[in-house]
Amino acid sequence: MGMSRAALGRLPLYLDYLHNLADASPYISAARIAQSLNLGEVQVRKDLSSISGKGRPKLGYLKAELTRDLTLALRGDAVSYAVIAGAGSLGRALLDYEGFSVFGLEIAAAFDSDPQRLGTSARGKPILPWTELSDYCRSKDVRIGIIAVPASAAQTVCEAMLANGIAAIWNFAPCTLDIPDGVAVKYENLALSLAHLKTLLRTTD
Amino acid sequence: MGMSRAALGRLPLYLDYLHNLADASPYISAARIAQSLNLGEVQVRKDLSSISGKGRPKLGYLKAELTRDLTLALRGDAVSYAVIAGAGSLGRALLDYEGFSVFGLEIAAAFDSDPQRLGTSARGKPILPWTELSDYCRSKDVRIGIIAVPASAAQTVCEAMLANGIAAIWNFAPCTLDIPDGVAVKYENLALSLAHLKTLLRTTD
Repeated sequence: MGMSRAALGRLPLYLDYLHNLADASPYISAARIAQSLNLGEVQVRKDLSSISGKGRPKLGYLKAELTRDLTLALRGDAVSYAVIAGAGSLGRALLDYEGFSVFGLEIAAAFDSDPQRLGTSARGKPILPWTELSDYCRSKDVRIGIIAVPASAAQTVCEAMLANGIAAIWNFAPCTLDIPDGVAVKYENLALSLAHLKTLLRTTD
Repeated sequence: MGMSRAALGRLPLYLDYLHNLADASPYISAARIAQSLNLGEVQVRKDLSSISGKGRPKLGYLKAELTRDLTLALRGDAVSYAVIAGAGSLGRALLDYEGFSVFGLEIAAAFDSDPQRLGTSARGKPILPWTELSDYCRSKDVRIGIIAVPASAAQTVCEAMLANGIAAIWNFAPCTLDIPDGVAVKYENLALSLAHLKTLLRTTD
């Protein structure tokens, strides 16, 4: 790719913007993306041209083509494996969520300390004993850990993941984690997403 | 509040930024928030002062206080009710997700057309027949609809929601919806969130 990490990190923003775009035109310009996302136009042009060429003069990019090229760039060349801690309803929902594979991501298994939850998910993914996390992560080169346990257990789970080679954490537990430098972390706050939608409902006073 | 809809819509951004902030200082300045989010400093100062006062000179806002004030401002005065279409694993996980109430949101019920899924969730929330959506929405003044059905059913479900007074849609189905003007919609793409985390793992070439 030859793309900087910062540029790569902007690709999901562009894709999310395209997914949420309401208007009917098949085209989108780099200038409009830059303005909508509060980014510099030169930067956006450079990012997009490196993965999807220059676009049509005066029209910009075909949205469908740009979406495809952004997805391919995010997919990269190799599959990254993730595991989930916590096989409650959210953990199992994530384990069976379709659509990760398009980005070269595979949630390989979930782990839980409750023997009653072990076995397989609705779509046949393994739910394994928590004590097997270490062997599993090392044998499969798992780099991403997803935390779907209660907040009270999240820090302990996080430390076990980091001790077993995981370098990026996606945290669904409603708490802040104490994480060493160099570990990537993303906090997913579903309640905040819904709160954002609620702000669109309110009328201006 | 006296806050514009645009300003209200920025509050979740500020809160998400605070949640994801790694450094240990108890303070955060409006200038730093503005810079990190690519927003104008004057605008950020105005937004924050309207909900949390002026902050400390040279230090900024106490993160804990600002988090509390942002949450309260997003909560507003009245509870907004939401319903979920689809009581598969994701729908049930959302139905039982804790933490919506802090923003004045209540997911009241889920609806499904599969008789085997009806009854109550793990936390005792009702899972009702799809045919009861209309009566339920009107009796409870439901304004938010959450779509957790397969992509093939999402548009039909969306139209039924809109026909029953719902004015904002949170869509987890991996598809674009055809939505009339004036309806708020938010597409939640969990795969894209995970893809973003993956970009943080890759080394710069």
